[in-house]
Amino acid sequence: MPRYKLVLEYDGTPFVGWQRQDSGRSVQSALEAAILKFTGETVKTVTAGRTDAGVHALGQVVHADFAKDWPTDTVRDALNFHLKPDPIVVLEAAVAADDFSARFSAVERQYLYRILNRRSLPALERNRVWHVPYPLDAGAMHEAAQLLVGHHDFSTFRASLCQARSPEKTLDQLDVSRAGDEIRIVARARSFLHHQVRNMVGTLKLVGDRKWTKGDVAAALAARDRARGGPTAPAEGLYLVAVRY
Amino acid sequence: MPRYKLVLEYDGTPFVGWQRQDSGRSVQSALEAAILKFTGETVKTVTAGRTDAGVHALGQVVHADFAKDWPTDTVRDALNFHLKPDPIVVLEAAVAADDFSARFSAVERQYLYRILNRRSLPALERNRVWHVPYPLDAGAMHEAAQLLVGHHDFSTFRASLCQARSPEKTLDQLDVSRAGDEIRIVARARSFLHHQVRNMVGTLKLVGDRKWTKGDVAAALAARDRARGGPTAPAEGLYLVAVRY
Repeated sequence: MPRYKLVLEYDGTPFVGWQRQDSGRSVQSALEAAILKFTGETVKTVTAGRTDAGVHALGQVVHADFAKDWPTDTVRDALNFHLKPDPIVVLEAAVAADDFSARFSAVERQYLYRILNRRSLPALERNRVWHVPYPLDAGAMHEAAQLLVGHHDFSTFRASLCQARSPEKTLDQLDVSRAGDEIRIVARARSFLHHQVRNMVGTLKLVGDRKWTKGDVAAALAARDRARGGPTAPAEGLYLVAVRY
Repeated sequence: MPRYKLVLEYDGTPFVGWQRQDSGRSVQSALEAAILKFTGETVKTVTAGRTDAGVHALGQVVHADFAKDWPTDTVRDALNFHLKPDPIVVLEAAVAADDFSARFSAVERQYLYRILNRRSLPALERNRVWHVPYPLDAGAMHEAAQLLVGHHDFSTFRASLCQARSPEKTLDQLDVSRAGDEIRIVARARSFLHHQVRNMVGTLKLVGDRKWTKGDVAAALAARDRARGGPTAPAEGLYLVAVRY
């Protein structure tokens, strides 16, 4: 059974998230429905990152096994044809080794978080950014972010529903920069806890706001207690950018 | 009667264009309805660029006269409140001189045209880009574009409905560049003919495609005949970026 690796872009707005839920449309169910239409097979796909409702992807990675060998261009184009009503596209399809796992073979995941930092609501970037109407100090946010880089117990930034075995992770990059009205936060790690990026962003925003100091961030991290972290930043600003293998 | 200058951002997708039409919702009517709710006055707004259906704005400029003096922050915030269901926002409100005209005082208009040049449809940038699924040579497009820069009779790139008195315009900039999968075309001039940017882009795309040479573009321009130009590029890739006074 040939295994295919698929790279997806999607707009998370209309979906309940990656994973199938009891109600609502998920990215996974839309993709698996397109596969069923294409190959006639009911396939279970495996993903690198189970994005939440409203979270977007520029380079989500998925693997799936098909009964038959198909040219990779056919896989990409046929799936795109069947996905068409939904804002999901296959950017690339490639043949993968039998032991390749989109989830377990990943050595790095990269996320982007976008804050629109201006008085007026977004018109063109609705559902694509977190709108914060008062000025944030991106420099202070970046400085505080550096305290989170490295190997830590990230319990303070972990959703209560998180299924990871350990709260310890190595965060390789957490850069905050401003480009005009937009603050962009880039996070890189082998893997993240559930809601980790959004919880870190919600905490850094308190620093940008001058409600918290760098010291407060260090104390929150050391507390290893979700109740000591900042609020969870909204889903709509988050993008899974790329997965490295 | 104080005159206000407003800078607007909008998503052109749901609108019939800037101008009021017999049917459908226009940006102008949405803005004037918001002004009516705010001041109780029926005001006729004047704009720097009467964008077509589906065309977006990052920095459209409008002027309007109100009966009363309002603080500019109040004007911006109140209009944004009343505009809320629509993807239109006021970025800035400022007091303008009595003889200021958003239309006639403008000394430069800047447009951006975005082409998504990749096999797969856009998922996140739907209605925000022109999707061209086969590779375009942006370098060749840029070279050909330079033939259009300067003072010319642009009849070849003028919509039949264009109301401008003369087809002669001075095009100050027409730059084509690639950033990954995206080709960005920046056009700057004091003013443009109706559909001029979209007709120039549709023509340059024929060069990117290798259907036309630079010489064909020069011949088309010299012909001063719309029938000799390339097709009109779709509205959804076009953005009015800024207006200078």
